[in-house]
Amino acid sequence: MPNPTAAMLVIGDEILSGRTRDANMHHLANVLTERGIDLKEVRVVSDDPDAITDAVKALSQAYDHLFTSGGIGPTHDDITADNVARAFDTPIDVRDDARALLEAHYQKSGQSLNDARLRMARIPEGATLIDNPVSIAPGFTLGNVHVMAGVPRIFEAMLESVLPKLTGGSPVLSQTLQIMRPEGDIAGPLADLAARYPDLSMGSYPFQREGAFGAHVVLRGTDPERLDAAMAELRKAFPE
Amino acid sequence: MPNPTAAMLVIGDEILSGRTRDANMHHLANVLTERGIDLKEVRVVSDDPDAITDAVKALSQAYDHLFTSGGIGPTHDDITADNVARAFDTPIDVRDDARALLEAHYQKSGQSLNDARLRMARIPEGATLIDNPVSIAPGFTLGNVHVMAGVPRIFEAMLESVLPKLTGGSPVLSQTLQIMRPEGDIAGPLADLAARYPDLSMGSYPFQREGAFGAHVVLRGTDPERLDAAMAELRKAFPE
Repeated sequence: MPNPTAAMLVIGDEILSGRTRDANMHHLANVLTERGIDLKEVRVVSDDPDAITDAVKALSQAYDHLFTSGGIGPTHDDITADNVARAFDTPIDVRDDARALLEAHYQKSGQSLNDARLRMARIPEGATLIDNPVSIAPGFTLGNVHVMAGVPRIFEAMLESVLPKLTGGSPVLSQTLQIMRPEGDIAGPLADLAARYPDLSMGSYPFQREGAFGAHVVLRGTDPERLDAAMAELRKAFPE
Repeated sequence: MPNPTAAMLVIGDEILSGRTRDANMHHLANVLTERGIDLKEVRVVSDDPDAITDAVKALSQAYDHLFTSGGIGPTHDDITADNVARAFDTPIDVRDDARALLEAHYQKSGQSLNDARLRMARIPEGATLIDNPVSIAPGFTLGNVHVMAGVPRIFEAMLESVLPKLTGGSPVLSQTLQIMRPEGDIAGPLADLAARYPDLSMGSYPFQREGAFGAHVVLRGTDPERLDAAMAELRKAFPE
């Protein structure tokens, strides 16, 4: 059975303007790979209602899971929840369970649950809350869309809450061989090997170090024995 | 006149598997912002012909410029050039001008221009070559699509070659105020300010430091006087 597929949608002008360097994509990619869920596509869009709605529709229809990052805070530019609801044609309002979480939290910290903060309790009908152990305001899962915060520490914590609920596949394993030859010398034998192991994916990532050319050749697949066999052939073709 | 718009397409399994952390998106975002070209969307797709072709079609039609990163080396998984050509229904083959560049380079370095390396001279008909001062194998511009390498040093060098040929707009300026208040206290006044300055975009990026909550509020726009005026109001609303 093929592994489940996933996409990610990163929402935020701050990424597209270069102010902030996204860190969540790399984290999600690693976590899903370990879990046997294949991340197939990532999109980054701005804080624009139509851009968010269109991307949520397209990606949630094309893949088994969609993970979103960003735009669920208390400020006017936090419009992710409303546009995920719009993509699914689902009503959204302040929900009692989410409001109760925030009330308890702000009461304890002596802060007021004002209108802005109450925006963080806007949850689409039928969605399941995602636990936020860092700053309480929850994410949510609606259909196959997991809506999470953009702040990396909160994104990672929310992902930890979501993952145990997802059915994983076979973890994708990888083996890497560093070959101190220019990539153009590696390409021919590597293409032959790739043709004989269609169940593995093979990539070559060139580098230059102290004037010498080399490449990391990465073999990826779910069957450890096939990986071992292909790696043995690769080592034979490129002895140290 | 509104600024020209742009999208980016990052091509590579190595990003989606978490092996490699993309660095080109952040660089491109900063460079385009300085130049007054608005980066509106980024997509990351795998080394899959249909995924590349579909994304090139969609993004080159939706935006003024599309910048691609990755997949133009000599190995079997380097399929960007062929699929950009496919998206434009344009023939592609080894082109004499690109072959001449590679021949001169490999002759000088005493390496053979084998079949794998010759793949890097595959250039769609009618495309303009993009200079690669680092490792010679060129990128190209076809229509409004600028096809560049994934290795950050080469991507950056190619971008330097392309930029002077593009018409820029008004550089987007930004001013940032650090406010040592929880974001929920900032949100209300900030929404009021945003409503009165619809020509500026305003974002709030929360942080936590030594147990205290704060946020960086970023005002962005092309008119320095409007930015100054809005920032003066913001400082007044949140005196230190």
